[in-house]
Amino acid sequence: LTATQRKGLATAKPPSSLFAALDTFSDRHIGPDNAEAAYMLSKLGYNSMDAFVDEVVPSKIRIPTDAISDNVIGPLSEAELLRRARLLGAENKQYKSYIGMGYHNAVVPPVILRNIMENPAWYTQYTPYQAELAQGRLESLVNFQTMIMSLTSMDIANSSLLDEATAAAEAMVMALVASNYKKTLLPFLEPGQKDLEFSWLWVTLIFAGFFSITPDLDGQVKDFRGLTESVHAAKALVAVATDLLALALLKPPGEWGADIAFGNSARFGVPAGYGGPHAAFFAKMPGRIIGRSRDAHGLPAYRLALQTREQHIRREKATSNICTSQALLANMAAMYAVYHGPEGLRRISNKVHGLTQLLKEIVERFGYRAIHQHFFDTLMLDSLHSAAAKAGINLRIVDDKHVGVTLDESVGPIDFLRIVNAFAASVGAPISTAENLPTSNRSSAIPESIRRTSDYLPSSEMLRYIHHLQSKDLSLVHSMTPLGSCTMKLNSTSSMIPLTWPEFSAVHPFVPLEQVKGYSKIIGDLETYLCKVTGFHACSLQPNSGAAGEYAGLSVIRAYHESRGEGHRDICLIPVSAHGTNPASAMMAGLKVVPVKSLQDGSLDLVDLKEKAEKHSDNLAAFMVRLAEVHITYPSTFGVFEDGANLNAKIGLTNPATCGGDVCHMNLHKTFAIPHGGGGPGMGPICVAEHLAPFLPSHPIVPTGGERPIDAVSAAPWGSASILFISWAYIKMLGGQGLVDSSKIALLSANYMAHRLSGHYSLRYKNANGRVAHELLIDFAEFDKSAGLKVTDFAKRLQDYGFHPPTVSWPISTCMLIEPTESESLEEIDRFCDAMINIRHEAEEVMTGKQPRDNNVLKNAPHPMSVIALSEEEWKRFPIHVSRPLIPLPWLRERKFWPTVSRCDCPSVEESAHEDA
Amino acid sequence: LTATQRKGLATAKPPSSLFAALDTFSDRHIGPDNAEAAYMLSKLGYNSMDAFVDEVVPSKIRIPTDAISDNVIGPLSEAELLRRARLLGAENKQYKSYIGMGYHNAVVPPVILRNIMENPAWYTQYTPYQAELAQGRLESLVNFQTMIMSLTSMDIANSSLLDEATAAAEAMVMALVASNYKKTLLPFLEPGQKDLEFSWLWVTLIFAGFFSITPDLDGQVKDFRGLTESVHAAKALVAVATDLLALALLKPPGEWGADIAFGNSARFGVPAGYGGPHAAFFAKMPGRIIGRSRDAHGLPAYRLALQTREQHIRREKATSNICTSQALLANMAAMYAVYHGPEGLRRISNKVHGLTQLLKEIVERFGYRAIHQHFFDTLMLDSLHSAAAKAGINLRIVDDKHVGVTLDESVGPIDFLRIVNAFAASVGAPISTAENLPTSNRSSAIPESIRRTSDYLPSSEMLRYIHHLQSKDLSLVHSMTPLGSCTMKLNSTSSMIPLTWPEFSAVHPFVPLEQVKGYSKIIGDLETYLCKVTGFHACSLQPNSGAAGEYAGLSVIRAYHESRGEGHRDICLIPVSAHGTNPASAMMAGLKVVPVKSLQDGSLDLVDLKEKAEKHSDNLAAFMVRLAEVHITYPSTFGVFEDGANLNAKIGLTNPATCGGDVCHMNLHKTFAIPHGGGGPGMGPICVAEHLAPFLPSHPIVPTGGERPIDAVSAAPWGSASILFISWAYIKMLGGQGLVDSSKIALLSANYMAHRLSGHYSLRYKNANGRVAHELLIDFAEFDKSAGLKVTDFAKRLQDYGFHPPTVSWPISTCMLIEPTESESLEEIDRFCDAMINIRHEAEEVMTGKQPRDNNVLKNAPHPMSVIALSEEEWKRFPIHVSRPLIPLPWLRERKFWPTVSRCDCPSVEESAHEDA
Ligand SMILES: Cc1ncc(COP(=O)(O)O)c(C=O)c1O
Ligand SMILES: Cc1ncc(COP(=O)(O)O)c(C=O)c1O
Ligand SMILES: O=C([O-])O
Repeated sequence: LTATQRKGLATAKPPSSLFAALDTFSDRHIGPDNAEAAYMLSKLGYNSMDAFVDEVVPSKIRIPTDAISDNVIGPLSEAELLRRARLLGAENKQYKSYIGMGYHNAVVPPVILRNIMENPAWYTQYTPYQAELAQGRLESLVNFQTMIMSLTSMDIANSSLLDEATAAAEAMVMALVASNYKKTLLPFLEPGQKDLEFSWLWVTLIFAGFFSITPDLDGQVKDFRGLTESVHAAKALVAVATDLLALALLKPPGEWGADIAFGNSARFGVPAGYGGPHAAFFAKMPGRIIGRSRDAHGLPAYRLALQTREQHIRREKATSNICTSQALLANMAAMYAVYHGPEGLRRISNKVHGLTQLLKEIVERFGYRAIHQHFFDTLMLDSLHSAAAKAGINLRIVDDKHVGVTLDESVGPIDFLRIVNAFAASVGAPISTAENLPTSNRSSAIPESIRRTSDYLPSSEMLRYIHHLQSKDLSLVHSMTPLGSCTMKLNSTSSMIPLTWPEFSAVHPFVPLEQVKGYSKIIGDLETYLCKVTGFHACSLQPNSGAAGEYAGLSVIRAYHESRGEGHRDICLIPVSAHGTNPASAMMAGLKVVPVKSLQDGSLDLVDLKEKAEKHSDNLAAFMVRLAEVHITYPSTFGVFEDGANLNAKIGLTNPATCGGDVCHMNLHKTFAIPHGGGGPGMGPICVAEHLAPFLPSHPIVPTGGERPIDAVSAAPWGSASILFISWAYIKMLGGQGLVDSSKIALLSANYMAHRLSGHYSLRYKNANGRVAHELLIDFAEFDKSAGLKVTDFAKRLQDYGFHPPTVSWPISTCMLIEPTESESLEEIDRFCDAMINIRHEAEEVMTGKQPRDNNVLKNAPHPMSVIALSEEEWKRFPIHVSRPLIPLPWLRERKFWPTVSRCDCPSVEESAHEDA
Repeated sequence: LTATQRKGLATAKPPSSLFAALDTFSDRHIGPDNAEAAYMLSKLGYNSMDAFVDEVVPSKIRIPTDAISDNVIGPLSEAELLRRARLLGAENKQYKSYIGMGYHNAVVPPVILRNIMENPAWYTQYTPYQAELAQGRLESLVNFQTMIMSLTSMDIANSSLLDEATAAAEAMVMALVASNYKKTLLPFLEPGQKDLEFSWLWVTLIFAGFFSITPDLDGQVKDFRGLTESVHAAKALVAVATDLLALALLKPPGEWGADIAFGNSARFGVPAGYGGPHAAFFAKMPGRIIGRSRDAHGLPAYRLALQTREQHIRREKATSNICTSQALLANMAAMYAVYHGPEGLRRISNKVHGLTQLLKEIVERFGYRAIHQHFFDTLMLDSLHSAAAKAGINLRIVDDKHVGVTLDESVGPIDFLRIVNAFAASVGAPISTAENLPTSNRSSAIPESIRRTSDYLPSSEMLRYIHHLQSKDLSLVHSMTPLGSCTMKLNSTSSMIPLTWPEFSAVHPFVPLEQVKGYSKIIGDLETYLCKVTGFHACSLQPNSGAAGEYAGLSVIRAYHESRGEGHRDICLIPVSAHGTNPASAMMAGLKVVPVKSLQDGSLDLVDLKEKAEKHSDNLAAFMVRLAEVHITYPSTFGVFEDGANLNAKIGLTNPATCGGDVCHMNLHKTFAIPHGGGGPGMGPICVAEHLAPFLPSHPIVPTGGERPIDAVSAAPWGSASILFISWAYIKMLGGQGLVDSSKIALLSANYMAHRLSGHYSLRYKNANGRVAHELLIDFAEFDKSAGLKVTDFAKRLQDYGFHPPTVSWPISTCMLIEPTESESLEEIDRFCDAMINIRHEAEEVMTGKQPRDNNVLKNAPHPMSVIALSEEEWKRFPIHVSRPLIPLPWLRERKFWPTVSRCDCPSVEESAHEDA
């Protein structure tokens, strides 16, 4: 079967009516067509899909076949989806918001909008764990870090955090850890501590450090120098939430002694998106930090210098659960800085500040009074606010007598007049026109003492620079990225297009709900669908990532226990094989982690589980488990938390509720097709059983969640709301049947791949029928024994074949976890298998001594293009003629992707994790 | 100076007011900044820009410095432009049109919209004359040809023509030529022949052939088999205008004996765009035809098998002036066919036909009568049409008593109900709802005898396929494309974004003018600006390409002569150095070409001109001249046609009116920044002096032009109207000052490049001050003499350095014409010069015998990636170690672009042209 034999979108099934849409999405989302699926089944020895699925998914956890179907979720075609999106967009009112509170009207340079935000070669990349295939993004993230370091005047900055709220929490934890208050972390983080809101609002003095904001929520810029000295004298840290644009004019935190500076980078050209996604910045750690290192040939190469995956190493001792960050948005902010350059940023900052001063001057003439005299872009005014709504603009409603007005780069003369005249109308003052506006520059409302005097940042060309960086990075536009546990599937363009329409992108998260009916429908639908899919009762779309979902779910369980007077329950059982974020999230939620062992074959040790559950029964709070691992039969006296990060291949066949869970989190950036963005954004909603629903998280500005909610877990009420559209569209377009078909084909593709590779590699974790689920785990331990070849060597060699390596060294250090997903065509799956098999032959040459153990195509991998430029002399040092390492299979002449650096000489964090272990 | 030293967008000039926009476009459009320009001037020995410009542009053709300024054209920033575009878009009403007449509501698959139409790597490419750098597009264009061949059942098809009207004209000419009526071509094409409208409407029996349409304008499908036999018996040809979607159900022209089939491919996923751009198809010739050939290593490679540049060879004997085609739109249509596959296309065709039958059935129940019984997608109904307008839909208003309704793929149940109920409302019939609509399939309204029975077309994966083809092609996202006479400059994203908004893309060209006020403003502004820039009185935006503009301009001159009783004037003087389309266009316009010689130094032979002008004075109709060539001093007793295809570096310094012209055409896809689209679309408006204004072309449906207009020269009233937005935005964003600055920097960059290359290569055409204009011409004749190296060898070698070669062998066969434009940065210009100089060193090695004459890095160029995969044995055949041909300069390790095939073994059309000559 070849591509040319395949027949486009149309399936065998003829259209159901004259009006039926013909661009059926499941035909495009699901790689193999009916004929190919039949062929794959026959290779596995089945003559029906049902017979196959029955042997893969145990009957005791199966759900009824009509649980998920087109009757439950009716499908939309790609064109219908876009039409629906237009209608929903029209239900989001296009009021302009000057609400501030961390969200602005960003002006996205068109070249960045189209060539990064709307470009699959930027948004479909995986996290840059494989540095050799990710030099473009890494360079751009270094630009981000440099920009943050330069604007904050701090020595080090990370490459982004989820949002400002998470960054605040991280700052708090860091202050605690640094000041040796480690022991006090747990009580401090208890949900009971209501005065400490897990939100963007941090003006709280705590014993470990001082949290300051400048400019603050009400717009005031403050001088913290005196206070900082006192705090330092008390050996505590000073953390400051601040604003990047203001820092072009304000004395930077690094210059007045702050230890930590953090905030949201979104106003650097990232749309508000009804709350996100946005990249928080954090100077200094934690999070991912990109560093410049050297590759195997001693040439400069960027790589992750620090991953937040310290969870892999320290597990229950980890102090942060952060995993996914916001690479795509950090890259946009970095490119925005490159586009404008330092002088441009300063001019924008001056303009925003100047307009704010002018506004103050004008409205004071009308008789209003500004509460604060020192400000950057925000005025707090004593005023009534009915006029604003009439003018089609949103101001911040502080209380009955006060409004906040926050200006930004987008404010043109017409916008400005509209604001001015709304204030004028309110008091019957005369209307201004463009002609009678004063425009001269006023003296700054920033006191001399805290004005910025230092310089920052360089710049460059745009479109080609963007393309040049893009060309260094492998993404889904090139080939499959078969990452076990991460589920990289088709990220359809149709689900992405509406995101950048202003109806979705230019919406402030705190506008009145009647202005966002389109968004509300999407949110409502998605909650319903996720409940259907999980079998649960209620859903929170607030958590901004899988780890945030874990934290939220466990916090909900804690709140439940407390509500029943069982607040002492603080033990969380977690299998040793669990994802590293699990124990870290449990720690963050104030739980004590008790690990549960694995058996030799990798499955959960049920005896150990029983033992520990009994031992801790009085204090047991929760048990975190991966859905695939076990069908829980224990009576649910404690909360069972399903780590359903990856629900792929389960939808319509089984669900977490049926498996006995109480809570489950889902990474929408996996099963539900939000693209990985080169390392974020993600979304990690949770679904819960009925008894937990009252405790779902709320939000201080826009109430969400249950009747006895836990505090907010994200800065915005529905997290990174704009990308919820993607998962909504994914479900809508597939419909019930398409979702179930996707599950089945995902199982089939994994088993077909297992079948093709099984003669060549050792597979682990097969079930009694010899079948795997939607992932396969290959163990490379034997090659280390026989030839000194490690799993990493195979992974790096795959890069030379144009594939992103699957997940390595997880969940077992000598293994590779492979997940083809339902979206890959049979042709692509075969191409990947061919590469794996060819590498097996290459390994054979090392095993038989044809290539030396320390100089062979696996150890030398990847081979970047610079190999070609080596001298004849240097070429002689290769074990075989250079053409073979570079172009090992004929199709690579046409489809070669070149890693741009050779292997980095420092071990990866995963590797050191296992070396430590 | 390096990129990192440059400082982003901001210029030295501080913002003029608090409200001034800070994303000034000219800072981004113009590559070198002030400091770099000063450096370049100093290298040339000037200390002011004015002193330099004075030595380049002769004072006698200069215009006043305030002729073009910010007072004349005020600048908009990028963000302001987008805001303005939104307002203009809102002025185009979003009525849905079922007018038909060749334009439909296309449904663009989102993956194609985003990844081709909105992707600079597809829309900024140059025409694929350099096959080695264009294999992706060539493959896609072969898909287009295959699709056309397959749907029409013709043996050969070209890779697109400008529009259906042009295709009709080509069919006519082909019929005439084929049937030996050559001599009659001229009178036949006279503008006087009013019965032959140069439009999409061709149902005219002519002596050389029979022009048929099926389905015809009124929707009727006809059986032409009998008639075709009679026409063939009379040794004439049958040409048919037809519809690709209908051909999925209709017996294809190739099966019933048509000799030529043509039409518009736009309904295959290309938006209406208020008239275009769209790709016409034409099976068989003329136009560009892509063929599969073999490269120097015998591997398969696509290339232009036939270019329409027969004008280069046959010049005044050429029978077609077509040059630019519609590659981008042809690629979209081809991808649409791949996306849907043959079964998908058949289903769409069936659906459209089925809905049309259903509509007929329903409205007949209301008492309407369909005029034709055999139809595909169009009903002609006896009806009044006021109800339609009320319902917000446009039908075709045929006359007081008849409407046409044309359905298409976009029609969903709601659309359908809206149409049905408009008819119902008109006669007071009951309103239908989704529930009471009959949906069963009816018997076909296509007679059995002309139904299609044969099969067509294969299919494939989408995003990766698109990306894979894209990755083979060099475009402006990689590096500069310094094509002399073609002016490849920055195609800013901001000018491209609004094009794909439905407010601009989903507009039928024949809607009432009150529905398109946004478009009308853009058209009005652009006409005004182009008149300002040229110094002329009136403008026609109708011609779809440069060649069409030439034809239009000369036709206007002829009409003028006729109006004065001088219809006998039919001689057109054209310099031998003119672009090949000039004589061909003159021929098409019914003029006799008399060539004017060039002098040794390449300039026009004024003595010869005078002689010929005097000799033909009684019959002289026009003199076609390139603006740069000469300042015309002859009294304008005849029309002087300025071939201003390329106005770059002239705006604000001189203009065609000042130079003595009467008409001038402009290729908007050059000076005015419409991207080249990989070989189209283009636009070629004309501006004329006051006495010619009455003759500007009109249009049969939407009147345009002067009071005594010539016939339409394009299918749509304003040609490819949607892309006029790009040039409008270009002018709007630069403003007067930015336009003038662009001219000056274009001159400076060319002279700086000339300065850098002058020690290494021989430059031709310098002025008395040793300066070139905005292009430089290098002569390679000396290398042929000394080492057998031809200009092509240098061009092909440039590919190995990642540059698209400049224009080769034109206007002089041994030369290369280089145009850096104002958009390239100093760094990029230097990089290009470095490559040229390094190639000069490589040539030296051949001259001195270090590399053999028949086996050297120039003759072997380009070196595709497959070279790496050659065996050690084969590598030994290279003249030097392989790393040098592949990576000749260090920066190529990072920025290498790989040609995907080696040199094609057949000579190019240009080469054979000069061999013939
Ligand atoms: C099983 C599992 N749980 C949790 C996570 C953490 O998700 P996130 O990166 O969105 O925080 C992941 C993601 O890598 C995962 O694979
Ligand atoms: C000088 C000149 N005239 C005319 C043309 C023809 O323009 P078009 O290809 O748009 O028909 C060109 C384009 O190559 C040109 O360079
Ligand atoms: O630079 C661009 O606007 O594409």
